[in-house]
Amino acid sequence: MPEQDARAVMSHTLREIPHPEMPHLSLGALGMLPEIDLIDNTLKITAAVPFAEVPIKDDLVNLFKQQVAKISPVVAVEVEFVVMDDEAREKFMQMAKTPRISTNPGTRVKHVVAVMSGKGGVGKSSVAALLASALHARGFEVGVLDADITGPSIPKMFGATAKPMVGPNGVEPVQSRKGVRLMSINLILESTDQAVIWRGPLISRVIEQFWSDINWGSLDYLIIDLPPGTSDAALTVAQSLPLNGVILVTSPQELAGMVVRKAAGMVEQLRIPLIGLIENMSFLTCPDCGKKLYPFGQSRSDDTAKKIQTDVIARLPLDSALAEKCDAGHVEDYQSSAFAVIVDRMIAWAEEREQGLQQRENITGCAGCAGGAA
Amino acid sequence: MPEQDARAVMSHTLREIPHPEMPHLSLGALGMLPEIDLIDNTLKITAAVPFAEVPIKDDLVNLFKQQVAKISPVVAVEVEFVVMDDEAREKFMQMAKTPRISTNPGTRVKHVVAVMSGKGGVGKSSVAALLASALHARGFEVGVLDADITGPSIPKMFGATAKPMVGPNGVEPVQSRKGVRLMSINLILESTDQAVIWRGPLISRVIEQFWSDINWGSLDYLIIDLPPGTSDAALTVAQSLPLNGVILVTSPQELAGMVVRKAAGMVEQLRIPLIGLIENMSFLTCPDCGKKLYPFGQSRSDDTAKKIQTDVIARLPLDSALAEKCDAGHVEDYQSSAFAVIVDRMIAWAEEREQGLQQRENITGCAGCAGGAA
Repeated sequence: MPEQDARAVMSHTLREIPHPEMPHLSLGALGMLPEIDLIDNTLKITAAVPFAEVPIKDDLVNLFKQQVAKISPVVAVEVEFVVMDDEAREKFMQMAKTPRISTNPGTRVKHVVAVMSGKGGVGKSSVAALLASALHARGFEVGVLDADITGPSIPKMFGATAKPMVGPNGVEPVQSRKGVRLMSINLILESTDQAVIWRGPLISRVIEQFWSDINWGSLDYLIIDLPPGTSDAALTVAQSLPLNGVILVTSPQELAGMVVRKAAGMVEQLRIPLIGLIENMSFLTCPDCGKKLYPFGQSRSDDTAKKIQTDVIARLPLDSALAEKCDAGHVEDYQSSAFAVIVDRMIAWAEEREQGLQQRENITGCAGCAGGAA
Repeated sequence: MPEQDARAVMSHTLREIPHPEMPHLSLGALGMLPEIDLIDNTLKITAAVPFAEVPIKDDLVNLFKQQVAKISPVVAVEVEFVVMDDEAREKFMQMAKTPRISTNPGTRVKHVVAVMSGKGGVGKSSVAALLASALHARGFEVGVLDADITGPSIPKMFGATAKPMVGPNGVEPVQSRKGVRLMSINLILESTDQAVIWRGPLISRVIEQFWSDINWGSLDYLIIDLPPGTSDAALTVAQSLPLNGVILVTSPQELAGMVVRKAAGMVEQLRIPLIGLIENMSFLTCPDCGKKLYPFGQSRSDDTAKKIQTDVIARLPLDSALAEKCDAGHVEDYQSSAFAVIVDRMIAWAEEREQGLQQRENITGCAGCAGGAA
């Protein structure tokens, strides 16, 4: 094949390669392959990356070599990485933020925030429920999307037992007593004890439907309660939903910190803003003698926060009253002074984010470019 | 097509249908379709099931109808369910127990036991580590397969940092200080903080390799530490590994109980023997005044045990000394009198199982039919 044709074929093939972290977007569409030249049997590829330190450089080089070898085993590959200019980076980030799945026509959410840990049983669900309740108590419209499909806790904590009804704009979330909008697999199952024995693709599909098929309405905050781990559920929420920020939850143990740092690594690699770290189950006060007890040992959370470049927003006590409120379906009635600082941080983060979006809108004149979920 | 040919085609198609819960085995191979007749445009199917109450009957009828409709939309389907005789059932159970993946030639394990919960953070990993240590202390050869790929805790608890070495029979597990054999993703990663951002199929593949590629040697017990949930990791361990029994771990909260009952439902549906339930983090004793505190509220585990038709083997305290031993990598040095009863139960279960296998071997004269992992 003449060199010009060979260049065109290779160029087309490379531009069609899916981005390793965003398989629904091609490298070409993302503006990552501005120049490809074939000179003397060497394909010279200029690969543009949004930041100097992206972790996928080696992956890209390997992908290029594989694809080129399939077309012609005699062509060598040379890759030069350049950092995108501001305009190209902006376009890249907008595309990267565009969710792959559609938004329900009735849904307009200002801030989509996931409560994550990596580690199980550190109190993600109770933090998510308390955060939603506290934001709602301050006058915001709030929803909770329970992304824990095999171990859903949200409906029980809120005492929600109604089945979701179908309306003209899709499935309506179930309202808690005080008006927080909820969606969870346990609102759909015949029995709350029923096991959901599904592999990852089905888990992901249900989470996507909890976004696209639910008429969430106008919300200030949608809080997503993630299951433990950094596999399908977390990946789907990060990649298919218009996630704006993550709150991490840990417990005092170094062992928990290690797993939480893995989750933080995922958040960083997928470039999701980290709002902060909450240490849960930090201490317990003996009701008889008032002694402060540390059942999970001395706290290592400051060390974890430092390693993941954030701070500990709050340390929450281990309180049997919370366990009992959750068991009784009355998480909304739990009073926690320690939680106020978390809500303040959340609101400050949201206000800063809104200001940033507003400024960008003023500059570009394009509300649709603001990258919000709504 | 003549009726005889049509019957043959339909019969062949139906016998090739994968079993809904064991997709590596066909209904024909499992002896579930002893008779299929086509009479006057009605396909009369006799479906043999191992027990009267199997949960997949409706699934089977739907599968039959779908497949027959593809071949001929005018043929009606009638299904009669019969219960297998002892010989057919025995054959079915043997096939169902045969793991899909191969066993390493160096591996001979008497009992493969998974520690499971469904719920995160109830102490599955510490129970698995303590159980392995206690069995080893009583003179048994023990291994721990860490099936928690995104949140592995086992190496840290045992203070294991060596990299697994490759020997003539595959990869050698890493030995703990006292000689428990360990395999975990965190023994392979460059940094223990590194995130494993993988979807389900890759998680499953690694767990399968932790069985098939590791030279476990001769073990009395292989303890599998499962992650939370009833998705890929649990399914792979239950379906691809020669799992002999499950220990469930819960915490006192009813909310935990609900999720543990989901896990129990999975264990029951996949017909894995349930050894018993352990309640962890039951109480805490104030070191100053001696008061017994219940940080997770009043225990609901008896109710959960009753619902899943087992008993609470033991209630373990919430002990900061355990958290600190785990953080320091010295879980093997932790002394717990409450744990002795769990080890006794484990050994009694194993002895009973061995006797059952021995009896079966005496009757059938076939050691290979014994269904053990070795």
